[in-house]
Amino acid sequence: MNNNGKTSTPVTVIGLGLMGRSLAAAFLAAGHPTTVWNRTAAKAEGLVADGARLAPSVADAVKASPLTIICLTDYSAVNGLLADDALDLSGTTLLNLTSGDSAQAREAARWAEQRGVRYLDGAIMAVPPSIGTAEAVILHSGPQADFAAHEATLAALGTASYLGEDPGLASLYDVAGLAMMWSVLNAWLQGTAMLRTAGVDAVTYAGFARLMAAGVAEWLPGYAEQIDRGEFPAEVSALETDVRAMDHLIEESEALGVNAELPKLFKAMADRAIAAGHGGEQYPVLIEEFAKPGPA
Amino acid sequence: MNNNGKTSTPVTVIGLGLMGRSLAAAFLAAGHPTTVWNRTAAKAEGLVADGARLAPSVADAVKASPLTIICLTDYSAVNGLLADDALDLSGTTLLNLTSGDSAQAREAARWAEQRGVRYLDGAIMAVPPSIGTAEAVILHSGPQADFAAHEATLAALGTASYLGEDPGLASLYDVAGLAMMWSVLNAWLQGTAMLRTAGVDAVTYAGFARLMAAGVAEWLPGYAEQIDRGEFPAEVSALETDVRAMDHLIEESEALGVNAELPKLFKAMADRAIAAGHGGEQYPVLIEEFAKPGPA
Ligand SMILES: NC(=O)c1ccc[n+]([C@@H]2O[C@H](COP(=O)([O-])OP(=O)(O)OC[C@H]3O[C@@H](n4cnc5c(N)ncnc54)[C@H](OP(=O)(O)O)[C@@H]3O)[C@@H](O)[C@H]2O)c1
Ligand SMILES: NC(=O)c1ccc[n+]([C@@H]2O[C@H](COP(=O)([O-])OP(=O)(O)OC[C@H]3O[C@@H](n4cnc5c(N)ncnc54)[C@H](OP(=O)(O)O)[C@@H]3O)[C@@H](O)[C@H]2O)c1
Repeated sequence: MNNNGKTSTPVTVIGLGLMGRSLAAAFLAAGHPTTVWNRTAAKAEGLVADGARLAPSVADAVKASPLTIICLTDYSAVNGLLADDALDLSGTTLLNLTSGDSAQAREAARWAEQRGVRYLDGAIMAVPPSIGTAEAVILHSGPQADFAAHEATLAALGTASYLGEDPGLASLYDVAGLAMMWSVLNAWLQGTAMLRTAGVDAVTYAGFARLMAAGVAEWLPGYAEQIDRGEFPAEVSALETDVRAMDHLIEESEALGVNAELPKLFKAMADRAIAAGHGGEQYPVLIEEFAKPGPA
Repeated sequence: MNNNGKTSTPVTVIGLGLMGRSLAAAFLAAGHPTTVWNRTAAKAEGLVADGARLAPSVADAVKASPLTIICLTDYSAVNGLLADDALDLSGTTLLNLTSGDSAQAREAARWAEQRGVRYLDGAIMAVPPSIGTAEAVILHSGPQADFAAHEATLAALGTASYLGEDPGLASLYDVAGLAMMWSVLNAWLQGTAMLRTAGVDAVTYAGFARLMAAGVAEWLPGYAEQIDRGEFPAEVSALETDVRAMDHLIEESEALGVNAELPKLFKAMADRAIAAGHGGEQYPVLIEEFAKPGPA
């Protein structure tokens, strides 16, 4: 055990799917006495061989550790498992790393509060093989004191990030972060498809796309100030200018036989903002379009 | 003049709109003897006061320097200006920084080649106030020797980048780069709108969005290798898994009353790739959707 001579905090992992097994393995590797439970007990075999203790019941599992991580398919599986009123959760903090939406997370937190159970909600922005490395970002939300109490233990799983008291934050940041991921990937694919028509290979174009994405990322904090102030002076360029360039992107894509749906959507949203009188303002004024449902 | 005692190369700037005036001013500031011409001569006044020479004609302007930069509204304005067969362009290299598409750039290069004129095409990825700083990226394409001959002079305008011999490359990289810019901004706005419903201000969320965009940017060169190989093994995750998470993003956006058009387009494109049999492959397989026109 790699615990540098200190007594490591015991942890419990409930749910030994692909992700749960990686979580438990990372705790074992970091030297934490690890108790596990899974509906299908056979999935614990490898972990038990590596030193985990297989609990005979959920009740036994949650009693074994001050921190219990739950990682099941979805919230209804979690709710089913915890519904038993006889279950004594007083000695542990539940950290639910099951994927779900912000409403489910807030509902679970309310249920826990009513029962006097300490509850944190989390979201794993990582794939199982990266668990246990700094690359694995895990988002947490809920009572700050509960996160602080277990932060050192959670470091065994990757980069533990705390977002705030609202238990819905972890899942909101998670899906918002995924939207960024797909956007960067799609824009890169759009450009790759265009440049390939000129014989430029994907690796060559990727270097440029990488610099563009990283460069624009640097603007976000400054642009965000416009949103928080609710004022969008065209310090750098006006939305009207963007829309003319969007037209060029659409025309060029179509001329090259490349998909133009993405640039057309950019333009449709910008056109609506211009129609609402914002053509002379700067790009972040589009927050008003993003903040309401789209046209039916 | 800030020329460190060396004799600076003369340059000519044709077109003194917002951008042309910034280009000429940057050359003057760097100590280049600068000749200017504009259809409306009055726009040269400030530059002349700062030391520029106003040429009486286009013919005179192009004779004054081994490098002539043209920056007009569009290619038809450029073509109109250069159509005069009596115009002697033998002593200068034309660098056309007027915005246009790749077909227009290639056509201009063909015209120049037929007339024995040295021609480079460029695209300015910057706003006028940033010209003269390293932040101003200017893309160049055309004969490498012609770019190399003037690279030192062009450094006065910002970061001069050379892309390759095909004269259409500058405009292609330009619009592809803009697609990345709008994508990062739109994904950030999508997330900002979602997080605002939880009381998170835009500046707080921007820090996270910035890290996400910069992090995903790092994946592009590796993902690009899959495209160049034409093989998309699901090393990190499969497209099917992405689509399930896209559904969560759509549902969460709609539940919060936030615009869901962007995630719906992501999903529509991914669904088509899955329908084409690529659900078990990795995200870059979507290049096949981007490389063809969208559904009618
Ligand atoms: N895998 C990833 O890349 C990844 C990444 C980020 C987040 N996540 C999230 O992590 C969670 C788990 O994912 P996974 O990949 O581990 O899924 P998985 O391999 O399908 O495992 C699902 C787990 O949930 C258990 N389960 C399902 N329904 C149950 C019920 N009614 N009662 C008790 N246990 C139940 C399963 O038990 P049995 O073994 O008995 O069936 C199993 O332990 C999901 O919310 C997923 O979205 C996964
Ligand atoms: N401004 C930016 O932020 C920016 C950024 C990147 C790229 N660009 C590109 O740079 C180019 C110039 O932009 P700009 O902002 O300088 O535009 P602008 O302020 O509108 O200036 C247009 C220039 O073109 C000249 N012109 C137009 N039609 C002409 C014709 N038929 N014959 C001769 N001259 C003609 C105008 O001459 P008059 O003065 O006589 O009208 C003026 O010098 C455009 O292609 C633009 O897309 C601009």
